[in-house]
Amino acid sequence: MSGWVKIAGLGPGSEELVTSQVSAVLAEATDVVGYIPYVARVAERPGLTLHASDNRVEIDRSQHALQMAAEGKRVVVVSSGDPGVFAMAAAVFEALENGPPEWRDIPIDVLPGITAMLAASARAGAPLGHDFCAINLSDNLKPWSLIEKRLRLAAQGDFAMAFYNPRSKSRPEGFVKTLEILREECEPERLILFARAVSRPDEAIRISTLAEATPDMADMQTVVIVGSSLTRVIERNAAPIVYTPRFTEAGDQG
Amino acid sequence: MSGWVKIAGLGPGSEELVTSQVSAVLAEATDVVGYIPYVARVAERPGLTLHASDNRVEIDRSQHALQMAAEGKRVVVVSSGDPGVFAMAAAVFEALENGPPEWRDIPIDVLPGITAMLAASARAGAPLGHDFCAINLSDNLKPWSLIEKRLRLAAQGDFAMAFYNPRSKSRPEGFVKTLEILREECEPERLILFARAVSRPDEAIRISTLAEATPDMADMQTVVIVGSSLTRVIERNAAPIVYTPRFTEAGDQG
Repeated sequence: MSGWVKIAGLGPGSEELVTSQVSAVLAEATDVVGYIPYVARVAERPGLTLHASDNRVEIDRSQHALQMAAEGKRVVVVSSGDPGVFAMAAAVFEALENGPPEWRDIPIDVLPGITAMLAASARAGAPLGHDFCAINLSDNLKPWSLIEKRLRLAAQGDFAMAFYNPRSKSRPEGFVKTLEILREECEPERLILFARAVSRPDEAIRISTLAEATPDMADMQTVVIVGSSLTRVIERNAAPIVYTPRFTEAGDQG
Repeated sequence: MSGWVKIAGLGPGSEELVTSQVSAVLAEATDVVGYIPYVARVAERPGLTLHASDNRVEIDRSQHALQMAAEGKRVVVVSSGDPGVFAMAAAVFEALENGPPEWRDIPIDVLPGITAMLAASARAGAPLGHDFCAINLSDNLKPWSLIEKRLRLAAQGDFAMAFYNPRSKSRPEGFVKTLEILREECEPERLILFARAVSRPDEAIRISTLAEATPDMADMQTVVIVGSSLTRVIERNAAPIVYTPRFTEAGDQG
């Protein structure tokens, strides 16, 4: 079998955040599959077929990719950010596990990318510079009770937190509840960062506190980062810097 | 002031995992500072001075970088992986906050990179495909009691977990205790992955369970990933795939 599947991360948006590994496999591919706006980031060329599909059809798309590879195609499944963080890698493996046994002979690789929370963290400073959690706030595939439990435990552990998919038109209430839970668990001055469309032309970074944050500060293009109790702001003439120190006790700076 | 500081992530080791953004700033730099093995990854050229320093001098190194930038140099501080994840970005901001006020006029950017846990996750499949925590197991800069608390809360929240700096010669006991805590909180079959030197020539990936894992499976070159209760293995003729599904309830595959 000469076909393969590579599940590739395109990073948050800017071309200069794509790894050369990903650029190289896109140059070898016969077929690219993915969500419409991500496939739109791949340059058209002779010999390459682009298969763009809508959101929420991750398993169909994965089956399609595996089937084409089984037929000898060189298929790149594109994700925004990193394919292993709330993206296509897990969906492809779900399809593989539940698919025909011969699919297990298809060579499959995951090619990492710059995930949104790390691009956002870099742009703001280093708010994830100490222990942190990454939580998908969408309850499409898990019960809200589990999200709430994880939010409370993460806050009790004084982790910094990064939230993916904080808010969509079909789920307007989840992020309202998220802010309420965080206000119960954390002090009002706790820093919260809204990073929208990082590295893209419409990038917007907003620094707030739990006391002042409102649900409309987030949408599906936003990664939200909540600091730990130690996360700090350095004021400057340029944009302020938000960072979480490496140490947890005064004077313990190694 | 014409100087600047860019805090750049070199990724886990392979050249093909470096972003073009990072390559471009290395080409513009007059000075590169960092830990010896990371500076060794930067090509020498006329006009570029390499300043390699030992481990555990992160604040000295940061002050040196900021001072050179204040004098007009174009300084790249290099980190392995992503500079915002248990790496140099927080150290530079600590030095900035505690340094002379004029340092706050220095342009500073953080350039993200592929962090070790995401390179490891990609190599193994998608073990971080659902909510997860990243925890630094070194107790150089935080008390062990906080690490233990975070480990227990993360396990109780059924997060997948990625551990940085799991074990060193000067801290042989921490990872022994970590495994004991996880065995108290999780079932014996829980998957645990040891990913050493990912993307480098001596890369080694080892899949085990909490029941069978031993402390010597980790060293300072290793990222350890512990699955959630739902993390699974797909057996193949090629290397097995470890992944965490996106859904949490049977049949709820969207």
